Amino acid sequence: MNKKTTIYDIAKVLDITAASVSRALNNNPKISESTRKLVLETAAKMNYKQNKLALALRSGKSYNVGVIVPRIDSNFFASVIRGIEEELYAHKYNVIICQTHEDEKREFENINTLLNAQVDGILMSVSNFTSESDSSENDRIIKRVIEKNVPLIFFDRKKNIDGVSSVTINDYDVSYLATKHLIEQGCSRIAHFKGNQSLEIFANRLAGYKQALLDNGIAFNESYVVQTKSSVEAGALAVNALMKLKNPPDAIFSSSDFAALGAIQQLKKEGLRIPEDFCVVGFGNEPFTDFMELPMSTVDQVPLEMGKMTAKVFLEHIDNTGNVKIEKKVVLTSELNIRQSSLRSNSQALEVVNNKKGVKI
Amino acid sequence: MNKKTTIYDIAKVLDITAASVSRALNNNPKISESTRKLVLETAAKMNYKQNKLALALRSGKSYNVGVIVPRIDSNFFASVIRGIEEELYAHKYNVIICQTHEDEKREFENINTLLNAQVDGILMSVSNFTSESDSSENDRIIKRVIEKNVPLIFFDRKKNIDGVSSVTINDYDVSYLATKHLIEQGCSRIAHFKGNQSLEIFANRLAGYKQALLDNGIAFNESYVVQTKSSVEAGALAVNALMKLKNPPDAIFSSSDFAALGAIQQLKKEGLRIPEDFCVVGFGNEPFTDFMELPMSTVDQVPLEMGKMTAKVFLEHIDNTGNVKIEKKVVLTSELNIRQSSLRSNSQALEVVNNKKGVKI
Repeated sequence: MNKKTTIYDIAKVLDITAASVSRALNNNPKISESTRKLVLETAAKMNYKQNKLALALRSGKSYNVGVIVPRIDSNFFASVIRGIEEELYAHKYNVIICQTHEDEKREFENINTLLNAQVDGILMSVSNFTSESDSSENDRIIKRVIEKNVPLIFFDRKKNIDGVSSVTINDYDVSYLATKHLIEQGCSRIAHFKGNQSLEIFANRLAGYKQALLDNGIAFNESYVVQTKSSVEAGALAVNALMKLKNPPDAIFSSSDFAALGAIQQLKKEGLRIPEDFCVVGFGNEPFTDFMELPMSTVDQVPLEMGKMTAKVFLEHIDNTGNVKIEKKVVLTSELNIRQSSLRSNSQALEVVNNKKGVKI
Repeated sequence: MNKKTTIYDIAKVLDITAASVSRALNNNPKISESTRKLVLETAAKMNYKQNKLALALRSGKSYNVGVIVPRIDSNFFASVIRGIEEELYAHKYNVIICQTHEDEKREFENINTLLNAQVDGILMSVSNFTSESDSSENDRIIKRVIEKNVPLIFFDRKKNIDGVSSVTINDYDVSYLATKHLIEQGCSRIAHFKGNQSLEIFANRLAGYKQALLDNGIAFNESYVVQTKSSVEAGALAVNALMKLKNPPDAIFSSSDFAALGAIQQLKKEGLRIPEDFCVVGFGNEPFTDFMELPMSTVDQVPLEMGKMTAKVFLEHIDNTGNVKIEKKVVLTSELNIRQSSLRSNSQALEVVNNKKGVKI
């Protein structure tokens, strides 16, 4: 391998100073157009590569963008990150990822870590703390991010902060649709696995569910709503509690695919047939929902699109050199994928099923 | 919320200088034991928190550790990362993650990014480049990591470099076992989906497969070995090619669960019954392998244990203040999980199945 070409090598070949080469490469107006052209051509011929760190020092940019997610082992977040990367790589940014495991202290540490690593922006999905925790420390560090003028974009799970952009999906509408679908299948005692209501997405899912019941003449029953974590175990526990009710439900709209999977496993254990006795709709379109013996109905949150859009909003912020304040709230349209776990009438199937890919295994 | 307690607040309360407080907090021997104790007690009472950045500046450590993986959307890598985090969080380290998507240039950029972010160590699983690519640039930057004395630990996919520690599993042994299991099920034309042979893990899997054939009197057939990427699509394509052979195989030992899944989908499409007509064993124990209509036999690579061990080896390196050179090669024992995709004789089932958890769905 040859030694790397430096600006000194170029200077030697052209018999000018290294400082002039550097100025020419950085479009300094002190350098004539003809010299600039000559330097660029020679640099290209000699296979000169600009040092990225040097570039960063000059521009004051690190070309690193930090992404904070609750967990990476969910297809949803992994796909959002892939969308972010695809968009940002094309603009020479690197992406570094931190996960919080829904832990408040960890979220704080992650933001701190990314600030210390001099990232050019933070793209973040807020964590789902237990209700007892006090997130004021985290609000303070988010304030610090904003004060430092590091662009901050929320995706999926957001906080409402003035001047902070976000990219989300239409959680309310799609939850309304999912609940209406269960009613159309003949279910009338529909339970809901809700997430932490301090997060807007989970509040919107509950609100959409409630409104669909109301619009279809079904009374809202508080005891059918169970707060669950997004885990298989939590879903199994929640369905156990529900089935002990005097008048147990005949369907679940779950705000998490993982909890819905736990519910289905438990219902089967108790001898219930799905969808004949009990219908289930999940949320997230995790790949396993389509690989199951009985493919699960679920909401596709268009994560790739969400990631790309989040990256685009970041790029708008970073390119905004003027004094214009940008605040963008993008809401993407998600899709309800109706599959066997909630489909009783086959006649309707062909009409409503969408996005069904691949072969059942 | 109260204002944060500073060393000046503590100094005021105790009527000593801030410098003395700082020295006491940092165990400076110039400070008497009684003063040190008094300062620590007062600091605790006043809910004083040491500034992490200040700590980093003093110790020359960032308390950030970088992890590089080919992809985060595989349960294997996500679980290794969880193991790393669990171990390192307890030692006050933060973890930042980069993924390469098996792209050479991206791997280079990730190492560069982590070095620029001043990480205290890099824990890395090497990417699976296409054979045409030239990885000499990446070898050079890895050399730079070593020269800079940033501890580098490989896990799962490693390079053999003097002085660099690694944590892997017994790929050869478990591949031998998996192939032997297929032979015991009555399969005699066993195909293998191999990975990139420049990576030791994939070379070992092929070698274990070959040896098992040899030891059981089955001639090795080159046309039964197909190089596949770790994707559902690649598995479907590979099985298509195999089934066009004059004497098609009756089993596959795949070095990837994703490719094995693609193969099963394709075989079913062509009307083959599994395991009656065709047996399949995957590698990785991805969660979907257990959720499928027909649970898939696969190798559990003990990722959580691998992550924890990798973190422990890193901690040994960072704590090694002497001039002793540490080079550790840890090989963990993986497990073959035999499930329905390769189990023809039920009598044998109870003997060999291990680690079967949860309920089939």
